[in-house]
Amino acid sequence: MAMLQDLYPDDFSHCYGCGRLNAHGLHVKSEWRDGEAVARFRPAEYHMALPGFVYGGLIASLADCHAMATAAGASMVQAGAVPGRDPTPRFVTASLHVDFLRPTPLGPELLLRSRPVDVGERKIVVEMSVLAADVECARARVIAVRAPDTMRFTRS
Amino acid sequence: MAMLQDLYPDDFSHCYGCGRLNAHGLHVKSEWRDGEAVARFRPAEYHMALPGFVYGGLIASLADCHAMATAAGASMVQAGAVPGRDPTPRFVTASLHVDFLRPTPLGPELLLRSRPVDVGERKIVVEMSVLAADVECARARVIAVRAPDTMRFTRS
Repeated sequence: MAMLQDLYPDDFSHCYGCGRLNAHGLHVKSEWRDGEAVARFRPAEYHMALPGFVYGGLIASLADCHAMATAAGASMVQAGAVPGRDPTPRFVTASLHVDFLRPTPLGPELLLRSRPVDVGERKIVVEMSVLAADVECARARVIAVRAPDTMRFTRS
Repeated sequence: MAMLQDLYPDDFSHCYGCGRLNAHGLHVKSEWRDGEAVARFRPAEYHMALPGFVYGGLIASLADCHAMATAAGASMVQAGAVPGRDPTPRFVTASLHVDFLRPTPLGPELLLRSRPVDVGERKIVVEMSVLAADVECARARVIAVRAPDTMRFTRS
């Protein structure tokens, strides 16, 4: 199965966090796994808050994109589509909350594990844990809404 | 007066969001203004969520660093120091909440206006608005705590 972001339509694939067509971006990739989603990301050396610790803004960015993919996967299941096989619908972030439980060590690959906790027609709530070397360092709760057509890029 | 981040100690100046010593970073700069703080930031073309709109993870990152500087300024005033003149103490983020009120247009310089709303000895709560072309596009509420000595970088 493909990563969820690889199945966004082209005109929704420019996101700095997760767009495959953004040459400068982070390229967050999320895998749908039976009702949950998982992403792995290795921060660069310069993604630091203080030497030795991951920058919180990066963690917020990873949580944001991974949550949108998770919401998309949940909406697909609800509609009878198959996440990772069928086109991924694009959601956008209504609100993002991150609790930093402890400083996140810079070095290990980060693991983001998320699950949809409230799936509505238009609004989906996602919760996740961010782990480094098997230790939970942050938690996030993100509210996703289906991208309105007015945000869709139309080439002139 | 100097920008608050320019007066962080060197070993707290490597942050990807606001560290003057991070060659790859965003270099967020916050100015203390009589009990409030202001930052201005012009996103790069590639800092997009969708074409024409700013990436939410960038807004979260700006809010994070600007809130830490705001908390530092508030703590300095409480201690009788002068923000923008005296060394800025380093705070770290305990939690970060961003409400995205509307899509943020990509192009205009962003304006972040923040104020401390609860100033404790160890914990400071900061609220802010993020505006583009005079329109409020996002609001953030951030809890800052004084950086523990265990996070301080010590050269070996």
